[in-house]
Amino acid sequence: MNDDLPGLARVRVVLIETSHPGNIGAAARAMKVMGLTRLYLVRPQRFPDQEAQVRASGADDVLMQARVCATLDEALADCVLVLGASARLRSLPWPVMDARQAALQAAAEAQAQHQVALVFGREQSGLSNEELQRCHGLLHIPTGSDFSSLNLAAAVQVVSYELRMALGGGLPAAVDEGDYASAAELESFYAHLEQTLIQIGFLDPANPRQVMRRLRRLYQRARTERVELNILRGMLTETQKRLR
Amino acid sequence: MNDDLPGLARVRVVLIETSHPGNIGAAARAMKVMGLTRLYLVRPQRFPDQEAQVRASGADDVLMQARVCATLDEALADCVLVLGASARLRSLPWPVMDARQAALQAAAEAQAQHQVALVFGREQSGLSNEELQRCHGLLHIPTGSDFSSLNLAAAVQVVSYELRMALGGGLPAAVDEGDYASAAELESFYAHLEQTLIQIGFLDPANPRQVMRRLRRLYQRARTERVELNILRGMLTETQKRLR
Repeated sequence: MNDDLPGLARVRVVLIETSHPGNIGAAARAMKVMGLTRLYLVRPQRFPDQEAQVRASGADDVLMQARVCATLDEALADCVLVLGASARLRSLPWPVMDARQAALQAAAEAQAQHQVALVFGREQSGLSNEELQRCHGLLHIPTGSDFSSLNLAAAVQVVSYELRMALGGGLPAAVDEGDYASAAELESFYAHLEQTLIQIGFLDPANPRQVMRRLRRLYQRARTERVELNILRGMLTETQKRLR
Repeated sequence: MNDDLPGLARVRVVLIETSHPGNIGAAARAMKVMGLTRLYLVRPQRFPDQEAQVRASGADDVLMQARVCATLDEALADCVLVLGASARLRSLPWPVMDARQAALQAAAEAQAQHQVALVFGREQSGLSNEELQRCHGLLHIPTGSDFSSLNLAAAVQVVSYELRMALGGGLPAAVDEGDYASAAELESFYAHLEQTLIQIGFLDPANPRQVMRRLRRLYQRARTERVELNILRGMLTETQKRLR
């Protein structure tokens, strides 16, 4: 895994007036597991706190370095992109992106050396309208409509994960270290297979039906590897030996 | 939000030998918030349990309907695609996808009416090699390399979220209800603005420099809405009145 993805260091998570210190700890852990380390706490109700430490379990350094701010403006001062997480639709329409779109924008800005803030409001009431107006856009995490209460740490987890993905943290499209059989090796195997199937009386050369076509389809689709082909050919050879 | 996304009902989450009932509850909540409801528990250490109820907070129905199984085979019996979550790389290479790739495959299968299982192993040790061999592929959630311990509920949250996204649960590319000003309205505003700037002595018609070009760029980029344009024009009109 490629760590220190360029850009992660320029993205901060800002939590506003969090009620439960356990949620601060769980959010710190959710961040750190995705490589984010900069946590800003605006007027946390209880911090530092033993419960935050417990829930951070391993992300204590993120908590230790967390900056406690008296105002949201202080936490955002040097940020040129501010995205606020919002669970509900607003009467005053503000540009709304889903977490993936927001992460792509945040990642692009961070890679362009800009400071970016992802802002999460209170557990119960989210962001106030005044706080919303500090944001350039809103970030919405899609949920089922009959049960949409994503808790704070889960929201931070999804957004941190999306940011990591947007910065190129996913696996390459093909993690492919297979030592595949070549076309010639496969053809040689199919000939061996067909011969053996005829010898054991499974395949009637006068009426072969779809048998070889089906078997070819299976081994082609599976992209059979050399080591597997050797096992299969060994099975055929032993079968032929028994027939003599 | 579009609920009941086609396919969600055909995807189950299977948890193997979970140690802590709190993690079962938190996983149930993580599922439900993304619209997943089918939970299978293979030999849970303590279930049902009060702590599972507490952590489920609102997803009690998912817990109530959870199926407790004696074996993994029982939980998977009717599934045609089985993907196992894995945090570590394996000595025996198995096809590995990241959570997004895995969710796309799971969603495609579920939409094709196939039963799909997403399997999560023990909190400490994950899946055994024997369990791994029940899987068609492995699902890996990318994490930072120096702290990769995603807890069970967080892993279920990320995968459930990705599944929802893969089934089309994201916001449309443009959630755009703006009542934007037309080109003619904007041109009329720019003329009004330029005239006013000349009248207040800010713009020298003999040496206009980049002023109007810059201002045009700002209002064009922001895709100024009608209601905003009316406010701006009102400001210009009042300014002109004061000058008379």
